[in-house]
Amino acid sequence: MSKKISTVILGASGYTGAELLRLLQNHPAFEIVALTGDSQAGKPVDAVYPHLRGRNLPALVKHTEVDFSNVQLVFCCLPHGTTQQIIAALPAHVKIVDLSADFRLFDPKAYAEWYGHAHQAVELQKNAVYGITELNRHAIQPARLVANPGCYPTSILLPMVPLVEAGLVVPTSISANSLSGISGAGRSAKQEMLFTELDGGVSAYGIGKHRHMAEMEQQLTAAANQEIAISFTPHLVPITRGMLSTIHATLAEGSTVEAVRAALTTRYAGEPFVTVLADGAPTTHQVRGTNQCVMSVHAGRQPRELIIISVIDNLVKGASGQALQNANLMFGLPETTNLELTAVFP
Amino acid sequence: MSKKISTVILGASGYTGAELLRLLQNHPAFEIVALTGDSQAGKPVDAVYPHLRGRNLPALVKHTEVDFSNVQLVFCCLPHGTTQQIIAALPAHVKIVDLSADFRLFDPKAYAEWYGHAHQAVELQKNAVYGITELNRHAIQPARLVANPGCYPTSILLPMVPLVEAGLVVPTSISANSLSGISGAGRSAKQEMLFTELDGGVSAYGIGKHRHMAEMEQQLTAAANQEIAISFTPHLVPITRGMLSTIHATLAEGSTVEAVRAALTTRYAGEPFVTVLADGAPTTHQVRGTNQCVMSVHAGRQPRELIIISVIDNLVKGASGQALQNANLMFGLPETTNLELTAVFP
Amino acid sequence: MSKKISTVILGASGYTGAELLRLLQNHPAFEIVALTGDSQAGKPVDAVYPHLRGRNLPALVKHTEVDFSNVQLVFCCLPHGTTQQIIAALPAHVKIVDLSADFRLFDPKAYAEWYGHAHQAVELQKNAVYGITELNRHAIQPARLVANPGCYPTSILLPMVPLVEAGLVVPTSISANSLSGISGAGRSAKQEMLFTELDGGVSAYGIGKHRHMAEMEQQLTAAANQEIAISFTPHLVPITRGMLSTIHATLAEGSTVEAVRAALTTRYAGEPFVTVLADGAPTTHQVRGTNQCVMSVHAGRQPRELIIISVIDNLVKGASGQALQNANLMFGLPETTNLELTAVFP
Amino acid sequence: MSKKISTVILGASGYTGAELLRLLQNHPAFEIVALTGDSQAGKPVDAVYPHLRGRNLPALVKHTEVDFSNVQLVFCCLPHGTTQQIIAALPAHVKIVDLSADFRLFDPKAYAEWYGHAHQAVELQKNAVYGITELNRHAIQPARLVANPGCYPTSILLPMVPLVEAGLVVPTSISANSLSGISGAGRSAKQEMLFTELDGGVSAYGIGKHRHMAEMEQQLTAAANQEIAISFTPHLVPITRGMLSTIHATLAEGSTVEAVRAALTTRYAGEPFVTVLADGAPTTHQVRGTNQCVMSVHAGRQPRELIIISVIDNLVKGASGQALQNANLMFGLPETTNLELTAVFP
Repeated sequence: MSKKISTVILGASGYTGAELLRLLQNHPAFEIVALTGDSQAGKPVDAVYPHLRGRNLPALVKHTEVDFSNVQLVFCCLPHGTTQQIIAALPAHVKIVDLSADFRLFDPKAYAEWYGHAHQAVELQKNAVYGITELNRHAIQPARLVANPGCYPTSILLPMVPLVEAGLVVPTSISANSLSGISGAGRSAKQEMLFTELDGGVSAYGIGKHRHMAEMEQQLTAAANQEIAISFTPHLVPITRGMLSTIHATLAEGSTVEAVRAALTTRYAGEPFVTVLADGAPTTHQVRGTNQCVMSVHAGRQPRELIIISVIDNLVKGASGQALQNANLMFGLPETTNLELTAVFP
Repeated sequence: MSKKISTVILGASGYTGAELLRLLQNHPAFEIVALTGDSQAGKPVDAVYPHLRGRNLPALVKHTEVDFSNVQLVFCCLPHGTTQQIIAALPAHVKIVDLSADFRLFDPKAYAEWYGHAHQAVELQKNAVYGITELNRHAIQPARLVANPGCYPTSILLPMVPLVEAGLVVPTSISANSLSGISGAGRSAKQEMLFTELDGGVSAYGIGKHRHMAEMEQQLTAAANQEIAISFTPHLVPITRGMLSTIHATLAEGSTVEAVRAALTTRYAGEPFVTVLADGAPTTHQVRGTNQCVMSVHAGRQPRELIIISVIDNLVKGASGQALQNANLMFGLPETTNLELTAVFP
Repeated sequence: MSKKISTVILGASGYTGAELLRLLQNHPAFEIVALTGDSQAGKPVDAVYPHLRGRNLPALVKHTEVDFSNVQLVFCCLPHGTTQQIIAALPAHVKIVDLSADFRLFDPKAYAEWYGHAHQAVELQKNAVYGITELNRHAIQPARLVANPGCYPTSILLPMVPLVEAGLVVPTSISANSLSGISGAGRSAKQEMLFTELDGGVSAYGIGKHRHMAEMEQQLTAAANQEIAISFTPHLVPITRGMLSTIHATLAEGSTVEAVRAALTTRYAGEPFVTVLADGAPTTHQVRGTNQCVMSVHAGRQPRELIIISVIDNLVKGASGQALQNANLMFGLPETTNLELTAVFP
Repeated sequence: MSKKISTVILGASGYTGAELLRLLQNHPAFEIVALTGDSQAGKPVDAVYPHLRGRNLPALVKHTEVDFSNVQLVFCCLPHGTTQQIIAALPAHVKIVDLSADFRLFDPKAYAEWYGHAHQAVELQKNAVYGITELNRHAIQPARLVANPGCYPTSILLPMVPLVEAGLVVPTSISANSLSGISGAGRSAKQEMLFTELDGGVSAYGIGKHRHMAEMEQQLTAAANQEIAISFTPHLVPITRGMLSTIHATLAEGSTVEAVRAALTTRYAGEPFVTVLADGAPTTHQVRGTNQCVMSVHAGRQPRELIIISVIDNLVKGASGQALQNANLMFGLPETTNLELTAVFP
């Protein structure tokens, strides 16, 4: 292919934008032609991200300055809410991977309920595809607009959707406790995200009402073919990257821990980015900087109690890595293109 | 009182020993007369703990060098297993607060099952009292031997025992996910506890089989008056001190989140070391270095789902602080003596 | 004394204010009658600092709401620049410990040069006393206005002023590299102070031009009785509290490392808050949460090379602890009142 | 090239070994044929390093089990002292990059003095080449045995050797303060390297006598053509990876900060792994996981005072990355092969 696919990152000055820039270095097919960052417009990338110095990247511009007529791919890393109208205004030939939450909920009522305002692009919403690659590959491949999932849902749905579909767990029994690295909160200056406020301590937040519950319930409801409410408690831990979800569920009548492990192992055999451990449990260290999800399956002490541990890097498989995996898929490239990464450990 | 209570710390060279030394500084009634640390015997305390320089403390000795004939109080900070015979050999007049796990399980069969060997001091075990102060004050006050509870059980039983006793939750439904600071692993040199192995990541461990489950089940079974199995998953997070437990349970028929909050608030009104929040959720920062347990009560999205967040400092209320609280109680002193601490924040 | 000294903290919602609140708990002589925090006025302290819940402290008010007619002591924790006019407006009977940089430089020209604007209270400046307690006790005791020193200068001047005064080092040769915990940057929301920007890395800043150089040069010039320029490079390290200064100097002709150690040991014998080690070197862990400065003296490999390591907690001896030490002194109390703290370690 | 260069890593179970494994993934020319780790022999790599699961690597063996007859390249990651005899026993056709300190000092007397015992392979020592690639490329290219430099020397010599050679600084005036990530201490279980001992604090160590001083003095002495003693103070900071050196020196008569910056900029123009900043100062974040050294040049306030800040990743440019760079060079490959890495930030 002599001509590369011209690619734009909207909102490149945030952490998911920076991570896309890392992953797109020397990509054989995607060529970055514009980077937007409205508040940083005019600055070179290395003024915002010194670790990207010398990478021959275009300077940041306002999104209104971009000519999309020859653009083929847009990664949208804008904050939720602002995204809908910008995406709605893109020419029809542009394919989009949206990393915000704006197109993840297919029901406009659910969107309004969880996000507090009416959806601004309801027509477009209808054509969006939910983008956990391994679970939705056939729909993502031909899609124009992929709603890249949240980090928490990625870590939880990868193990649980196959189990719910296979009837191996009681679908109404799912309870997830997740630990997230701080980078999930983005790069905005907020007092509660200062080093001094987070170092040396942990906390739970969004208890019983985190917005990612909506997309998890939507996907689990579809998998179970019955209305599912999830129990979910996110926590902030003082690490920059990484997410660990500890998921409890009740085994279905007749199901066993071994059957669950076997089902997940079979389901993900051959998947380059999902590993089901035969024994032991994963730590987030082993996926840091990579597009991997590693999970393990355990018995609890309560009757029919199942425990699953699932780890990802929230900025990679939980955001920009999966976005690139989806884009690779949408353009007919091997999904693993530029994503065969080894964790940086220690 | 002109004469102070002569006090010995066995195993003073570990973290719980060091924390007791901090808390006993200028104690009006307890006077440290000996510190043992078999592998460090002969060294001054500040060779082991430079932060205790200049505190006028006795040098470390072997425990066989201590003359217990005039000793009135022993804090035992030895590793589990080694403790039983040493405590069994103490003169009858000595009161003991044991911070190990050795006397927490009243059933010798349960001990053998969880700890892998027969109990060495079964007769003594019969007289041990489980030492969560707020839940067992009347038994602790006259006791000779108090089994100081584990850190995880303290953070979980403080909220859950009153709720089980009051019939406000389904006692078989309790599921706890806990995050622990690394100091809980002690001061022994182990590869997996190196800075480089823990910094920047999180992990679960002891999944479905952590030894603290045994004492939690023992106490919950007593409170429920029925056999209870607990779901419990501990995690290591890269902080030195602090513990946060996220506890899920099903509300009993007719119970409500508000009723649970009210019951806990009433139960702990007047307790100097337990706080039930009216709103919001606690972080471990706010109890760091203190003997406080702070908890909050929340509704989940599943039917009758209750979520409780409970935080302590694992080395204080989870170990040495509660040990001192118990000792104060055993000697008729105000429980708060030397424990009115303000968290060091930031 | 039946009546306590009525005390106000201006700017109580920042970290130095919070630290003063911690240190003033149960102070036998100082009673907090008002706390100001203009942007947080109206809120209870525990809304801003949950770790201070239940401490019976007054709610935050605007500083204009405080009636100073019966106030005897003011701790001023306001940002520099805003402080001068507020302090100038206080009634003459009020004694003041100012933790800002506003009154540290006695020469209005130096102030204007380093801070970029003319001093607003030049008359008052004349009566300010520089407040490193151990070095200036006789002037601080009767002072009305004490300029509490910066954290870097405290860690560097405590060892170096006595050596310069005694002629043991070449005064023009002093070069200090300091590592600071992040709390020194305060509690304002700034992108560069986010957890994600600081975790896992280190940096130097203010290279060759940090404002604390001005007060160090002022004090060293006075000690040397000749114009001194200092070499100083501050660094940010990912810890919340703590400061370590590594100071290099050339020994004066005929001086030795042993003579330097002996001189410092003699100078600080009997000082409750300064320790000169006989061997080894200190870490910041051993002073965390305390008002201690611990220093050590070493030989380098270059001819007549002296190396001194000095550690403090930047929020205690480097700010609020020394402020309380000064206030104790100004009101005729033992300097150690409420400052006999043991480090929280681990 | 149809046949790859067969490569062995001795001591692959430590951190520099693991880092080599990361960097050698998919290397176009080097093929790993054996990994040794005497205490871990028999285990698969992922038992020691879970983040390397699924990488198709040979299991660990004892070094005596390796047949070196067809081996072309050995990376030696053994602890110093053990290395000399093992390397001396390798067949003559094997090229070696030794990451230990064993062959860095060319003078056996200096070795004995700094390391406390006589060198065991003095003949071999004569043929070893000191391996800072950018400074010694012509000698490294044809060498059989390259002594890969220490991390501290790499960060300090890269800026200082060219300045000393050019006569731009007074060579006897060099004073370096360095901050090191903890991974530099290796993976052995030591109490002082526990998370709990290091988290939240900083310390200096090896003051005036760190072994890396020997190799720095050797190289600076050669550059200056006069005997040089260096002032050097290393510090441990609670980060896993990264090194920052703050270097002070006196400008030579007639030299200026601008001349120094220009000289370094010219010297390293075209070097893929060394960057001289035009303004600002680097942080270790921007080189984490990469083979970069980034430096900046500043004026101090003292007469003719020069300050240089230099950052590397201690495990990459400070160890395994430079080792691979040297190996690439020794085998006629582009130095950048498998080393064009982007920092993982945040």
